[in-house]
Amino acid sequence: MSCCPFCLDAARSLCFFETNLFFAIYNQSPILPGHSLIVSKRHLQSAVELTQEESQALFPFIQKVMLILAKAFKTESFDISLQDGLPAGQTVMHLHVHVIPRVVGDLANPGDWYYELEKADNAMIDSFTRPKLEHWQLIEITNRLRIVSNEIQKL
Amino acid sequence: MSCCPFCLDAARSLCFFETNLFFAIYNQSPILPGHSLIVSKRHLQSAVELTQEESQALFPFIQKVMLILAKAFKTESFDISLQDGLPAGQTVMHLHVHVIPRVVGDLANPGDWYYELEKADNAMIDSFTRPKLEHWQLIEITNRLRIVSNEIQKL
Repeated sequence: MSCCPFCLDAARSLCFFETNLFFAIYNQSPILPGHSLIVSKRHLQSAVELTQEESQALFPFIQKVMLILAKAFKTESFDISLQDGLPAGQTVMHLHVHVIPRVVGDLANPGDWYYELEKADNAMIDSFTRPKLEHWQLIEITNRLRIVSNEIQKL
Repeated sequence: MSCCPFCLDAARSLCFFETNLFFAIYNQSPILPGHSLIVSKRHLQSAVELTQEESQALFPFIQKVMLILAKAFKTESFDISLQDGLPAGQTVMHLHVHVIPRVVGDLANPGDWYYELEKADNAMIDSFTRPKLEHWQLIEITNRLRIVSNEIQKL
């Protein structure tokens, strides 16, 4: 799917953790520090399309990303969100799960993350309206997360 | 954990789909029609505590619940949300995943579901502030979902 942002090499080359089925990337317009995306390597829109192998592998992958982000962003609290289908707010039609580290007081209203997500999740990987990280910033944080990821794999 | 609402027989007896590891119940104060909860049978707070077996089984369970609710509520769109930890909005400290069927125009602002969830998810299974279904209504919808669940299992 050449028109899908998550199928582009540009996205995949920035992953900080991957298996044969999924990859994790840092969000270019994070709504909070650590906001990352878990993406299926196969182009599919909905979670109901996951094969049995993919489905069984998804949550263990999410757990691993939680451990990486917990270590990198010093929190054990996360909002994990899957918007499946247009009426649910899915805007990039390739299955992706948001993993958002949370800490006490990070937003004026704890529930604001979802409105931020809505504002943000409407363009290539993320937003036209929110400030985007510079490419060097994205590479820097990706490299940091790759180091943490390697440390976690060794445990 | 006798003080945990999800460990009580009262909650578990109202499940419409279960395996040896998880059960699905209808939310007593649904924020939208079909709003259901997937709960681990074992008492644990965070998704990082899931064993490998539980972790591998969770997403296939979510997929099955999506199929049941898709058939019962005539939509293929869902918001799936896990609030892991207090700063992420978790109020019942027993792992549970919200599965919320969505249809176009169901809320004035599509993102309002999360604020509704925040308002709702602060008491026994759900809310002091939102209207609760009567017990007979909960039993009625649970029975309907059990029938759909049995039909799905036969496919």
